[in-house]
Amino acid sequence: MNKTKPLAIIAGAGPGLGQAVARKLAQENYRVIGLRRSLPSAERISGVEFAQLDLQDNLATEQTLNTYISRYGPPEILVHNPAKLMIKPFLETTAEDFVMAWKSMVLSAVNVCQVVLPHMLQSGQGNIIISGATASLRGGKNFAAFASAKFALRGLAQSLAREYQQQGIHVAHVILDGIINTEASRSLHKLASERMMSPDDIAKIYWQLIQQPRSTWSHEVDVRPQQETF
Amino acid sequence: MNKTKPLAIIAGAGPGLGQAVARKLAQENYRVIGLRRSLPSAERISGVEFAQLDLQDNLATEQTLNTYISRYGPPEILVHNPAKLMIKPFLETTAEDFVMAWKSMVLSAVNVCQVVLPHMLQSGQGNIIISGATASLRGGKNFAAFASAKFALRGLAQSLAREYQQQGIHVAHVILDGIINTEASRSLHKLASERMMSPDDIAKIYWQLIQQPRSTWSHEVDVRPQQETF
Amino acid sequence: MNKTKPLAIIAGAGPGLGQAVARKLAQENYRVIGLRRSLPSAERISGVEFAQLDLQDNLATEQTLNTYISRYGPPEILVHNPAKLMIKPFLETTAEDFVMAWKSMVLSAVNVCQVVLPHMLQSGQGNIIISGATASLRGGKNFAAFASAKFALRGLAQSLAREYQQQGIHVAHVILDGIINTEASRSLHKLASERMMSPDDIAKIYWQLIQQPRSTWSHEVDVRPQQETF
Amino acid sequence: MNKTKPLAIIAGAGPGLGQAVARKLAQENYRVIGLRRSLPSAERISGVEFAQLDLQDNLATEQTLNTYISRYGPPEILVHNPAKLMIKPFLETTAEDFVMAWKSMVLSAVNVCQVVLPHMLQSGQGNIIISGATASLRGGKNFAAFASAKFALRGLAQSLAREYQQQGIHVAHVILDGIINTEASRSLHKLASERMMSPDDIAKIYWQLIQQPRSTWSHEVDVRPQQETF
Repeated sequence: MNKTKPLAIIAGAGPGLGQAVARKLAQENYRVIGLRRSLPSAERISGVEFAQLDLQDNLATEQTLNTYISRYGPPEILVHNPAKLMIKPFLETTAEDFVMAWKSMVLSAVNVCQVVLPHMLQSGQGNIIISGATASLRGGKNFAAFASAKFALRGLAQSLAREYQQQGIHVAHVILDGIINTEASRSLHKLASERMMSPDDIAKIYWQLIQQPRSTWSHEVDVRPQQETF
Repeated sequence: MNKTKPLAIIAGAGPGLGQAVARKLAQENYRVIGLRRSLPSAERISGVEFAQLDLQDNLATEQTLNTYISRYGPPEILVHNPAKLMIKPFLETTAEDFVMAWKSMVLSAVNVCQVVLPHMLQSGQGNIIISGATASLRGGKNFAAFASAKFALRGLAQSLAREYQQQGIHVAHVILDGIINTEASRSLHKLASERMMSPDDIAKIYWQLIQQPRSTWSHEVDVRPQQETF
Repeated sequence: MNKTKPLAIIAGAGPGLGQAVARKLAQENYRVIGLRRSLPSAERISGVEFAQLDLQDNLATEQTLNTYISRYGPPEILVHNPAKLMIKPFLETTAEDFVMAWKSMVLSAVNVCQVVLPHMLQSGQGNIIISGATASLRGGKNFAAFASAKFALRGLAQSLAREYQQQGIHVAHVILDGIINTEASRSLHKLASERMMSPDDIAKIYWQLIQQPRSTWSHEVDVRPQQETF
Repeated sequence: MNKTKPLAIIAGAGPGLGQAVARKLAQENYRVIGLRRSLPSAERISGVEFAQLDLQDNLATEQTLNTYISRYGPPEILVHNPAKLMIKPFLETTAEDFVMAWKSMVLSAVNVCQVVLPHMLQSGQGNIIISGATASLRGGKNFAAFASAKFALRGLAQSLAREYQQQGIHVAHVILDGIINTEASRSLHKLASERMMSPDDIAKIYWQLIQQPRSTWSHEVDVRPQQETF
């Protein structure tokens, strides 16, 4: 095993938040595995290894992650990002849409936590950070599928925290209460950049959570841009 | 069409809460359809018609409900009860368990609301009451699958309320914060009956919600036994 | 003692909500005492006796209430309404404004509960209903004094519920999430009446709470007009 | 004016949390003023100047703080700590107890924020951190006065955040969900130290909040010991 650097796993390592967190953890001297549904063509981030994986497939998730864990040792950090925004009137949202939203955000978290947790428990430590949204706390018109899945993810995060915190695992749920500044959201929302959250800044918040002393662990933290009303 | 009595649909008409609500609504002069996964062998409730239906199957749900609706007119009331309690350490809860918990509690609600809502919207009125639990607000050790699904159901209920209340549909989410006094729970929990919620009393609360005037609709209501700490 | 009718006390019996609740309880055959800072000049409600009382004065509250209680027996119902709306930038809100808001909404509740509770406890039953507002759950710009006092009142209501529910006292906190349709609010807000809550409808909700069976008591209930976004 | 170091004000600079925060900010190169009801006899912390002040007295608060501000420039940080724990049955808690709890925790915050905010607004930046507790979110038996005041403080913090965040002021409310490890609490609770929060660790969390980038400000953060159930 090559354990010179501790292992960090980014579930959902797309070009916005996921890669910003990957970059930050690589800078902090972690060996970072970025999991994506489709491999980035050109992007390279020093210290980050990308892997193609359908996180909704529990067997594939198990095999892929265990390969890395046997190679690099138990993961110290897991960050879960996948978020499939879906904005539709409820009556136009199909049962399949609901299944898809739930699987992409909740089942993916279940699958990856199931593989990662036994290793974290064995080493008596670990950080699991789960990315929430405004809709984690508030359902809304046209948000039935998305809010329902984000609520579910929050219930999962709380349950994991209450089950594993005393065994040394820090589970944090972050309410990202705003729009993340990515290429996709810039073209969609046309917001001024100071009204959006910078992926690099979110990565700093996640790093703050990882660095919290054992006597003062946060479970739920909200973040939003200074310019944002709330 | 035989519309002398307005139609009420009970999704999840098992021998505890579901049948108590069915009985109450039949007494209040509704024509009640009680939907169950398996038909009761002996039980008969005056004014209640039971139907066998897998609510997770959206096509079957559509066909069955539309048969009743074309026969009896648009539903005025939908009550959603299915709750599959699942208490297991997260690491012993399989991906299939998570899917099962979510489908039984959330997908069933999605399916039945999708059929019922267009008819309610057309008549400009309707009541949808969704049964929550303590775990709708709080995840816990060994409750990952159950709490996650109950959180999801709450997010769905909020979204439906915010989408359809202004069109005349009253969507209420009831936090049942305690144990329901049924044969099954009596053998499981061995609680004194005054520390449990009577199904008939819950049915009265649901009836209160249905009777609320239009200027004072509740969306979320908690209930628990007087003897219960909380 | 003249105990033919059970006693109900309305703390804050002004011409909007308070008098609607007083009227409803009188119709339900309670002997109703309506407490007001200044006596109504002309208003008369059959079955309701008004008394002038500064609820912020604990000695006066004790004397006045004990006079009625010794005459009519222990109160079965206490409803607390006083709400001093205050909308001002924080930097224009004086320390005195904060004191005034807190005393009018919170100290008044403390004082009246301190007198009423021992009698309720002795008879092993009682209902305390406390009127909250949107600002009970959410602070806002220009609402520092009002929200702070409404939050405080909610903390008090929760504490009373958790301290006395098991001794037979039902303490309910109602989030009145909207504008109450009164003469004052009609001139202030110019809202269509269907976007406001009718005082008589709120009185019906309070009556629902009083009638809840012991196995299904609500502690917190929100209400808002059907036409309201939320 | 002597502005080589930015000014930080600690309202409630007692020997537990307050002085730990003072020490941390002094280390981070702030000029720290620690406000206390009674001056410490022996304690000295390098870089921290203590001042005796009754924060419930708005005139004294204004005079004292303005003296420091005219000397050292506008404050960049205000931390509010005063917490008067009061655990008593409601019926043994006097109106004076309620007033005292509210004044010590809420009025003190109002007073100090009223002096500090105009200066922060003028410089377009500032951090206000308010120390909450478990009772900020949950009333409880024997906690009526304490919870009511902590709820009020939370309502104030939310209102300030919503009023001033867009003008550059970061207002954060920290739920300290556990016992702080101080001499007083060690003798009171007899908890193992790993089940308490270290004041120095809380100071690190406050420092994390101060360092958050503008695009990702937290308003509410909970913290508790890793060993704590919640």
